[in-house]
Amino acid sequence: PWWAVIPTSILPGVVLKACSFSSAEISLLPTGHRCISQAAAKIDVDFDYDGPLMKTEVPGPRSRELMKQLNGIQNAEAVHFFCNYEESRGNYLVDVDGNRMLDLYSQISSIPIGYSHPSLIKLLQQPQNLSTFINRPALGILPPENFAERLKESLLSVAPKGLSQVVTMSCGSCSNENAFKAIFMWYRNKERGHNNVTKEELESCMINQPPGCPDYAMLSFMGGFHGRTMGCLATTHSKAIHKLDIPSLDWPIAPFPRLKYPLEDFVKENQQEEARCLEEVEDLIVKYRKKKKIVAGIIVEPIQSEGGDNHASDDFFRKLRDIARKHGCAFLVDEVQTGGGCTGKFWAHEHWGLDDPADVVTFSKKMMTGGFFHKEEFRPNAPYRIFNTWLGDPSKNLMLAEVIKVIKREDLLNNATHAGKALLTGLLDLQARYPHLISRARGRGTFCSFDTPNDATRNKLITIARNKGVVLGGCGDRSIRFRPTLIFKDHHAHLFLNIFSDILANFK
Amino acid sequence: PWWAVIPTSILPGVVLKACSFSSAEISLLPTGHRCISQAAAKIDVDFDYDGPLMKTEVPGPRSRELMKQLNGIQNAEAVHFFCNYEESRGNYLVDVDGNRMLDLYSQISSIPIGYSHPSLIKLLQQPQNLSTFINRPALGILPPENFAERLKESLLSVAPKGLSQVVTMSCGSCSNENAFKAIFMWYRNKERGHNNVTKEELESCMINQPPGCPDYAMLSFMGGFHGRTMGCLATTHSKAIHKLDIPSLDWPIAPFPRLKYPLEDFVKENQQEEARCLEEVEDLIVKYRKKKKIVAGIIVEPIQSEGGDNHASDDFFRKLRDIARKHGCAFLVDEVQTGGGCTGKFWAHEHWGLDDPADVVTFSKKMMTGGFFHKEEFRPNAPYRIFNTWLGDPSKNLMLAEVIKVIKREDLLNNATHAGKALLTGLLDLQARYPHLISRARGRGTFCSFDTPNDATRNKLITIARNKGVVLGGCGDRSIRFRPTLIFKDHHAHLFLNIFSDILANFK
Repeated sequence: PWWAVIPTSILPGVVLKACSFSSAEISLLPTGHRCISQAAAKIDVDFDYDGPLMKTEVPGPRSRELMKQLNGIQNAEAVHFFCNYEESRGNYLVDVDGNRMLDLYSQISSIPIGYSHPSLIKLLQQPQNLSTFINRPALGILPPENFAERLKESLLSVAPKGLSQVVTMSCGSCSNENAFKAIFMWYRNKERGHNNVTKEELESCMINQPPGCPDYAMLSFMGGFHGRTMGCLATTHSKAIHKLDIPSLDWPIAPFPRLKYPLEDFVKENQQEEARCLEEVEDLIVKYRKKKKIVAGIIVEPIQSEGGDNHASDDFFRKLRDIARKHGCAFLVDEVQTGGGCTGKFWAHEHWGLDDPADVVTFSKKMMTGGFFHKEEFRPNAPYRIFNTWLGDPSKNLMLAEVIKVIKREDLLNNATHAGKALLTGLLDLQARYPHLISRARGRGTFCSFDTPNDATRNKLITIARNKGVVLGGCGDRSIRFRPTLIFKDHHAHLFLNIFSDILANFK
Repeated sequence: PWWAVIPTSILPGVVLKACSFSSAEISLLPTGHRCISQAAAKIDVDFDYDGPLMKTEVPGPRSRELMKQLNGIQNAEAVHFFCNYEESRGNYLVDVDGNRMLDLYSQISSIPIGYSHPSLIKLLQQPQNLSTFINRPALGILPPENFAERLKESLLSVAPKGLSQVVTMSCGSCSNENAFKAIFMWYRNKERGHNNVTKEELESCMINQPPGCPDYAMLSFMGGFHGRTMGCLATTHSKAIHKLDIPSLDWPIAPFPRLKYPLEDFVKENQQEEARCLEEVEDLIVKYRKKKKIVAGIIVEPIQSEGGDNHASDDFFRKLRDIARKHGCAFLVDEVQTGGGCTGKFWAHEHWGLDDPADVVTFSKKMMTGGFFHKEEFRPNAPYRIFNTWLGDPSKNLMLAEVIKVIKREDLLNNATHAGKALLTGLLDLQARYPHLISRARGRGTFCSFDTPNDATRNKLITIARNKGVVLGGCGDRSIRFRPTLIFKDHHAHLFLNIFSDILANFK
């Protein structure tokens, strides 16, 4: 079994050969230099460390000191620990107390190809790229010469099928907010049937009233998370802490399937559960239209992430797409957390095999820039309608182009499938051995998770793992989620499983 | 008079001595190298060009070709022209057709110390800064070691009086959205009078309903602009194009004073106008509370920018601040466009002489990072309440720290006052000479503007100026606004005035 592959020690002596050079040395290596691991045949190229190395409890004394300092400036209670990013490499995050941890959370799923990747260092060192980092333009009015070219070699080279248009934004929330706006404009234009806007519309919109500001809604799912600005927040229903005390909108909220695991034992129950949810979606659209609140679009995550890594079948999503089309609603897939390759396809919704593509797909995090793809019919019919000062950041587009090159060159989508299989197989095995601690192990690619009995146990497991050199993230009420980088390999899975097996064996 | 100072030619021969080195050479200059202008005694150090240099119409053939290309990917109708940022320096923006223009719009007021500033180039070239650009953290949970220190040397070193707390965000809209949230939480805690949240609140907020999502509102002003995400957009009332077709919230909107110019001729009328607006603010707060919609905060720009550079007196704002306090509303000053030094003080609202500081101040643009300052009582009472994945970007904080050093070292606030005076004096003179074309010349520091007779004339003037080598921006229905960088000096003002005087003399 996998847990015998690697000795349980996490200290030097791990079977993988170390690639030891300091970050100062990295920048001096000739272009393309790779440290080839001799000891592990299947691991071809690697620039990261050979394993965790713990010196103190985490947070250590230096982190605690810095927390106190930061807490004078802002509420710093969410801080886990302070990091030394200069020393962090590959899959390993180094903290300010010199602890080196295998990072399976990767900054809430937002580091695509690991820390301090040599390709990105090289990019920063090229004098011709300097300007891109210090002269940030207002992209909508004064783009740099290579703007369209850069979009083509980055975002458009991985665009979901059928979506030829792309707009960049600075973060995930702005991406969803602007996707909603594009959908509302599209819907209103459809309703109008022509391009003439009335004086009444122009005047009423200035004071937030219909018909200029129509009573449109986005339908969302209980358990979904789509961001924290007010439009997004009206579609977010993951945790009370995200929403408490913030005024919101009366928009319809459908139940998201709660699947029973193992899936093969609950085929019929799960089908019924999904059918129930889909029926509710249709009922809500009809019910809200009756009260003159028009559902212009449906937003859904391929896997509800913050809400607890809730999956549904590909069939569920295909049917949801059909319902959207049937009722004339736009179908918006939020790939902010699932996108970028971690599920083994570049976009998680590509697993569904849709006949008719999604209408709009939003992204951020691993994509380094926020933004959204959309079908041509969702293109704003006038300039300045989808607009803001920055509209993203060309320095992020530059880095993304390089990241996508690395993903393609190193076949990182297949790697995610492979390493994810190693991880999930191991989790299922642990679940069989520790059913009182682990349940509902699930995942697609490396986008894996499992449930623990309760919040307290989950948090305790995360803390213990961290002190053993593994950074994990929680989600939902009692789940642990895996969000490693795309250069997370089989041997990292085994390394983690090995450590975690020990933790579970000794858990009290 | 000023227009005799500089020859009318905008071609080589201008009295200022050129600092000619290509951008490739810039990076090779020894640290601290400055090109000292010999010819103009008052201009100490300078790295920008000596004047505009036009080769084609703008947009030129290369720009037009690139527009067509970009328009295949997204609606590119707002694009003015494409830029060569590598060749842009100081106050001069170079386009892809080789035209070099004096930039008085600076990317919608978002370039603080000019293009390709040597201090920022140096910063990028230091190997110890590389990591900050390529390892973007989730700042709320895993900040870098120097995070608090960097905030202290940058944002907190220029914090408005009385505001000890700061949170960073990625853009202006997210800054206002999160400022609203902090205000709503503060208001609700005040209402509760204790820290206990009921089960009903926790459950109702998950489905967007009160009491968990209370029916709170922000009061805003007609003509204001606070961003384009849905919360911000409910407080934005500048142009229909910003709002049409987007559902909104029934939040109160007060009139903003429409002052008559010249101010000294309309003292009484303007006082009455301001009193009328303030009365309306109070009436709206009372009226909305009667219908159970609680005004938790008031948001206002020190100078309404997108809405047409509408000013009000310092007295108006002091009284508005008093009204906010009297009714228990938070007072939020949106300094996204006015902040950063262009009015001659770091924050425009520092001109008002408030006894009781603003409660919350938002920023972005010239500050390179978004975010907001606030009083300690607005600090969220739990972690993760004001939170998102990135919470800004340490690479922007790094650059901002350097920018603030340059502002202090080069006394750029006094420069803004001085150069602004040169600009406004010249505009007033032009207004006296061309009253049929220019009216209501107004400004604080370099944050100047004037009105034209109508939209068509305004746009024509902007186009002609561009073809003569000056980039200007419009705002409101028929205004032209000046938003130069902080290194815009008296001689740039004279250079512009000289060119513009010619344009006006020949305008048909």
